[in-house]
Amino acid sequence: MRLMRITVFALLYCGFCWAQATDECKPSSLNIPGAKYPCVYPDGRATFRVVAPDAQKVQVRVGGAFDMEKGPDGAWMVTTKPLVVGFHYYSLVIDGSTVADPATRTFFGSGWDNSGIEIPEPAEVDYYLPKDVPHGQVGTSWYHSTVTGAWRRCLVYTPPGYDATPAVRYPVLYVQHGSGEDETGWIEQGYANFILDNLIAEKKAVPMIIVMEKGYATKLGQPAPLAQPPTVVNDAVRAAAPRGQNAFGDVLVKDVIPFVDSTFRTRADRDHRSMAGLSMGGNQACQITLANLDTFAWIGMFSGTGIGLSTQRFDPKTAFNGVMADATSFNRKVHLVWIGLGTAEPNPFPDSIKAFRESLEKGGIKYVYFESPGTAHEWLTWRRDLNDFAPRLFRK
Amino acid sequence: MRLMRITVFALLYCGFCWAQATDECKPSSLNIPGAKYPCVYPDGRATFRVVAPDAQKVQVRVGGAFDMEKGPDGAWMVTTKPLVVGFHYYSLVIDGSTVADPATRTFFGSGWDNSGIEIPEPAEVDYYLPKDVPHGQVGTSWYHSTVTGAWRRCLVYTPPGYDATPAVRYPVLYVQHGSGEDETGWIEQGYANFILDNLIAEKKAVPMIIVMEKGYATKLGQPAPLAQPPTVVNDAVRAAAPRGQNAFGDVLVKDVIPFVDSTFRTRADRDHRSMAGLSMGGNQACQITLANLDTFAWIGMFSGTGIGLSTQRFDPKTAFNGVMADATSFNRKVHLVWIGLGTAEPNPFPDSIKAFRESLEKGGIKYVYFESPGTAHEWLTWRRDLNDFAPRLFRK
Repeated sequence: MRLMRITVFALLYCGFCWAQATDECKPSSLNIPGAKYPCVYPDGRATFRVVAPDAQKVQVRVGGAFDMEKGPDGAWMVTTKPLVVGFHYYSLVIDGSTVADPATRTFFGSGWDNSGIEIPEPAEVDYYLPKDVPHGQVGTSWYHSTVTGAWRRCLVYTPPGYDATPAVRYPVLYVQHGSGEDETGWIEQGYANFILDNLIAEKKAVPMIIVMEKGYATKLGQPAPLAQPPTVVNDAVRAAAPRGQNAFGDVLVKDVIPFVDSTFRTRADRDHRSMAGLSMGGNQACQITLANLDTFAWIGMFSGTGIGLSTQRFDPKTAFNGVMADATSFNRKVHLVWIGLGTAEPNPFPDSIKAFRESLEKGGIKYVYFESPGTAHEWLTWRRDLNDFAPRLFRK
Repeated sequence: MRLMRITVFALLYCGFCWAQATDECKPSSLNIPGAKYPCVYPDGRATFRVVAPDAQKVQVRVGGAFDMEKGPDGAWMVTTKPLVVGFHYYSLVIDGSTVADPATRTFFGSGWDNSGIEIPEPAEVDYYLPKDVPHGQVGTSWYHSTVTGAWRRCLVYTPPGYDATPAVRYPVLYVQHGSGEDETGWIEQGYANFILDNLIAEKKAVPMIIVMEKGYATKLGQPAPLAQPPTVVNDAVRAAAPRGQNAFGDVLVKDVIPFVDSTFRTRADRDHRSMAGLSMGGNQACQITLANLDTFAWIGMFSGTGIGLSTQRFDPKTAFNGVMADATSFNRKVHLVWIGLGTAEPNPFPDSIKAFRESLEKGGIKYVYFESPGTAHEWLTWRRDLNDFAPRLFRK
């Protein structure tokens, strides 16, 4: 009887507190100012909350779908299972409509501005946080593309001391986002500026300029890429808009690099120019550098390679127009081939990268391989990649 | 009979095309890539579309609420009445939940990332668009605030030629956003960089640096500002988060200005330093400049003044610690007092600005007054303000 009373009391009590998060649940660092939810528990569980008094069904989609429960105040809440550490895009589904959660800042991914949540790493990790070190600047620069016939913008990180030392020239890393993202990804999600600030302060990386552009381009006069069918504008599963990428290599080599070399104090030769990218951007980095080895000497592929999503080996003697046919010459000419993968990434990424590595090995091509433990096809993997990759650059 | 048949046919036909927009409806310039909706008709009407197959009621809120109608494909649509020209924040209400429209880029206003739509001006107006002129850069700079004890960031526009002319020093305009907005507003919504690029190219404005910060700050050790109650995170009518502003003047004068003067090539004296702002930022500009006349000599108030939302006149002999008591001296010392208002702004703005102007006039204080025809308490008013204000700066 006593037990039953306690149980009843507990049930009643839960009727009031049904889904309130405890003080242990800390607001995500990506929330809008003042928003308590979403919050994250020390074990990685997250509690979400959305006001939707007249909705029939509300879900949060963050590494899987979680049904939310409606409380007496018209707010829907759910606490997830523990989430993978790092940055996750997420969205709400309110009566069949996929939208961003108004409680967080938005981040451009999958072709639209969706929500983000950051699950902190258990140990204290601060290599990507702003610290009390000199900070570089991230600038937005506009240039006219002769290839597309349009004004475009890129983001440019100039390292600490750039303005104060007008006689110094710097090497340049061009680094690209993934499919459905844009030039803001490496700053807003990747914290590339803070990673480099911290590496430079510790003298682990040489001061360098970083350039970020959006990896989509269609040649002037060619038909514009297909518009996204309006029915998928906010469907639950969205493909990135099928925007053309075929002219991006030309934009980079013919427009961006000349613009950067004439606008910033660069060391404008292949020994001081690198290209890297993540996922689709890794594919672009591989394809573009191998087609332009007079322009680039350092290559980074983060969760993506020159064979795209293929899991088939290639013939290193003939692939990429045969640039690897003479391995000794290639290994002398290319100062770094760097490949990274998160151990929690789903296929095809592990298999594709395995096939790519095996092909390189068969051809005698040297490369560095890096694994990020426990992280997915997401930005924490790529922050770690950059943190390992950047210190190896421009050491020759 | 024939007429009836035509009518029936037209009704049936409308059953199929019920709310499709015609080719005259052009996608808003602020849409995500590939999104056809929202689109805007030449007369300013806009058609919105949102996929929400299981929702009971969907509205778009853009200068009023418009009920959307559900089509056979589960998408809700509505065409509004003609909207005021310029940039509008807007949101969707899906079964009582206020969210951003996933079809547009998001813009930080009212304390969250909501949607935006741009209603083009009828005549060809391009003073705020990127043109084939030299472009300045917009940089994000991080600095440590001694006042708040935290890292903060500001955006800094450096004019065309800044990097190429290392011997030249530039005057600085500090320009602030409105309540609920942040340091990105003047670039993302206001196009301040393009406005200055174009003015400088036409030699209508002197090349200048522009600095933008977020106008919220609480002193180190003081209680943090009240968190937003979670119930209003996505309520329909949101107040801006009650974040403290009381320390912003200190942050600007003690942290930002020294940082900018030591990081950029500025002309670091009052004759070459201006502050302006819109709405809440206009109040801050007035309050901060009048309290620091050794630091600033040019003042701009866009849809906001030093009396906030008050519509009461002030006594120019005693207000603002008496800095206007001697009008002759004030008029000699302050090179420009500039006040702007959109003619479609609602009260209290017109009455407040009227009271402020009358008070200045009573005290013999000179000022420039500018009206933007037909625009509201929105960004097109403030683009026009900047376009009139900036050319008057630093001419002494």
